[in-house]
Amino acid sequence: MTTEPTRPAKPHRVVIVGAGFGGLEATFGLAGAPVAITLVDRRNHHLFQPLLYQVATASLATSEIAWPIRYLLRDRPEVTTLFATVSGVDAQAKRVLLDDGDAIPYDTLVLATGARHAYFGHDEWEPFAPGLKTLEDATTLRRRILVAFERAERETDPERRAALLTFVIVGAGPTGVELAGTIAELAHDTLAPDFRNIDTHKARVVLIEAGPRVLAGFADDLSAYAQRSLQSLGVEVVLGKAVTECSADGVVYGSERLQAKTLIWAAGVRASPAAEWLSVAADRAGRLQVEPDLSVPGHPDIFAVGDTVVIAGPDGKPVPGIAPAAKQQGRYVADLIKARLRGGTCPPFRYKHAGSLAQIGKRKAVIDFGTLKLRGAIAWWIWGIAHIYFLIGLRNRLSVSLSWLWVYMRDQRAARLITQGSSKVVS
Amino acid sequence: MTTEPTRPAKPHRVVIVGAGFGGLEATFGLAGAPVAITLVDRRNHHLFQPLLYQVATASLATSEIAWPIRYLLRDRPEVTTLFATVSGVDAQAKRVLLDDGDAIPYDTLVLATGARHAYFGHDEWEPFAPGLKTLEDATTLRRRILVAFERAERETDPERRAALLTFVIVGAGPTGVELAGTIAELAHDTLAPDFRNIDTHKARVVLIEAGPRVLAGFADDLSAYAQRSLQSLGVEVVLGKAVTECSADGVVYGSERLQAKTLIWAAGVRASPAAEWLSVAADRAGRLQVEPDLSVPGHPDIFAVGDTVVIAGPDGKPVPGIAPAAKQQGRYVADLIKARLRGGTCPPFRYKHAGSLAQIGKRKAVIDFGTLKLRGAIAWWIWGIAHIYFLIGLRNRLSVSLSWLWVYMRDQRAARLITQGSSKVVS
Repeated sequence: MTTEPTRPAKPHRVVIVGAGFGGLEATFGLAGAPVAITLVDRRNHHLFQPLLYQVATASLATSEIAWPIRYLLRDRPEVTTLFATVSGVDAQAKRVLLDDGDAIPYDTLVLATGARHAYFGHDEWEPFAPGLKTLEDATTLRRRILVAFERAERETDPERRAALLTFVIVGAGPTGVELAGTIAELAHDTLAPDFRNIDTHKARVVLIEAGPRVLAGFADDLSAYAQRSLQSLGVEVVLGKAVTECSADGVVYGSERLQAKTLIWAAGVRASPAAEWLSVAADRAGRLQVEPDLSVPGHPDIFAVGDTVVIAGPDGKPVPGIAPAAKQQGRYVADLIKARLRGGTCPPFRYKHAGSLAQIGKRKAVIDFGTLKLRGAIAWWIWGIAHIYFLIGLRNRLSVSLSWLWVYMRDQRAARLITQGSSKVVS
Repeated sequence: MTTEPTRPAKPHRVVIVGAGFGGLEATFGLAGAPVAITLVDRRNHHLFQPLLYQVATASLATSEIAWPIRYLLRDRPEVTTLFATVSGVDAQAKRVLLDDGDAIPYDTLVLATGARHAYFGHDEWEPFAPGLKTLEDATTLRRRILVAFERAERETDPERRAALLTFVIVGAGPTGVELAGTIAELAHDTLAPDFRNIDTHKARVVLIEAGPRVLAGFADDLSAYAQRSLQSLGVEVVLGKAVTECSADGVVYGSERLQAKTLIWAAGVRASPAAEWLSVAADRAGRLQVEPDLSVPGHPDIFAVGDTVVIAGPDGKPVPGIAPAAKQQGRYVADLIKARLRGGTCPPFRYKHAGSLAQIGKRKAVIDFGTLKLRGAIAWWIWGIAHIYFLIGLRNRLSVSLSWLWVYMRDQRAARLITQGSSKVVS
């Protein structure tokens, strides 16, 4: 092998923290560049978060929406994948610190560390109202939802049975809407023939939103359609009421107290502690304020992308925390690193909003392309095809298609498994 | 609806404990009988145990080999499925006792409670050498195997790295052989292109068996073929050596001490405590000694089937603890209950051995039909087709076929997920 004259003897070291949409896209974008990449994640898998609610509601298996990170980069010898947890950044010495004491030196650092759900100062609510960000979150929620029906089947006290059959989702953004619609379908269609003592049609699914409408990121008429669709699925939509208490017994919102054994939190996220690692400014949700080229102020060799950052889009509104935005930012940073290595630069990052999609239920979805607004069956088919398209690899596309076909044709959800404990853990 | 004159006003109450192969087949066999069935299981799913090792080795997803019990019985209104843990039997009062204080009255009781792995008086080995009986066992093993490679990739000490890349399977019955062969393929084929610092071809897979040959239940020449096949896959086969110690550092067998971070126990099982519930005789493995009609001595209205019992086959040897044996027993008990309700009886249970199958690796399997013995590619195809045939439902057959096609064509295993904890739990 001959050494290319333009390639420096020691390649530029890029460390990318996080293999979500942003970090992975930055890694893909650096293919062919004269760099040595270390991709660090505390998980061994990349997760297709937009379909995570389908694992939580038993429609998809975990392996259908997750891929081993190493496998995705097996043909990239210059990429080293590290299964490790980052505990900080020493920007002075240009090293990423791991929680086991190791440190990884970098020339350029990309922070793509994402976000977790947040409780607005009420972290004590988390055990009662778990959120949905990881595969474990999803299988935990799946267990809670399915166990609630199992316990209701055996409960003789009508009040306790009603509480077991009441599912409350806090927050009516896309995740909350998708969870509410799918839980309603699970209860009213999938599970109905399987139980003997309870009528699962009587399960209550309550979606509580502090704002004035569901899907606030969508156009008004799509919000209204989504609300009507949810109601036609049997979801009770409560608007303009903030939840003021979550407990083992249920929720309090406004002056109402609702007895419910299953609460799900879809009301807010908080960025990873990347801002704390660097001691730089962050907004209330912990998101880094970055320069127009996505570099961290005062640290031109550190970039941050995805849910870790807050940046204004061309319309002046913050770029939304969705997969396409993270991917665009990851790709931009890769392009900028390549340009800098050639001695050049790039114009500032400019977000292109392709559209907003949300599925509500079978043949019910909304798509807001800005000028073009779609709803109903046509939007649902486009939603499904788009999501299958964005899955990685033919196998998962076939597998998810097969799973969806069964949900669509037979109302059957394959992954109705209560794992992580037998009936003994029901308490 | 008119009441059939032959049907008693109050149907005969059958309680079946355990929804494995035996309990489920008994439930299926009672279709149409004038009975009210309560099927109790502490899991919500029926598990296809013969393929459990494929979940542990990342080839299949959990939902591909497990079905919600309720779903399998959704069209049987006379069957009530109970997600509960049995803690005992009050044979005097004819009631099954649940651990939450409830009790279920029965007229006829079927105990199909299965077995767990057993450590021959060394339960302290379990944390170091977990066994494989439940979905959680399988995902735990999968995590341990995959994490060992991840840790080896980051380990710089050659000795510790070697211990991380040494996988020991104790017991060379079908499960041990299948695990050893598949782990060897996982290490040497699937994972090889994905790591940068370690050569996964150097991973050692050591199969230790106290007896004189692998697959002792098969004919001698098939055992010999299986051993050669394992060795061709790179498995080190150690025969005639009992393991005398399992610890966090490895195993001791004979005078050898082997440093290994991943141990798997496939050396023995112990029946569920059904014999203790009834205070009746059991063999050393806790298995009930039953009458020729599978009823429990002294309790003609209590039957026991599957791994819970020990009974001699037509050849005088104990009926093996495999799925077809449990199914035959479950079906026999259903027929006997139906005969009794008509005032009749049945001839004693007679086990028909259809054959023994074990997969060793790609295009490598052995089948012992008694007179006909098969090995190699032909046995492997029959093994695969038979297992897909015995899966329940078209969806899982398609899904497993798809997963196997990917393993076969591309050496890719879809379910390489480390769940239940991030890299932080690696210790």
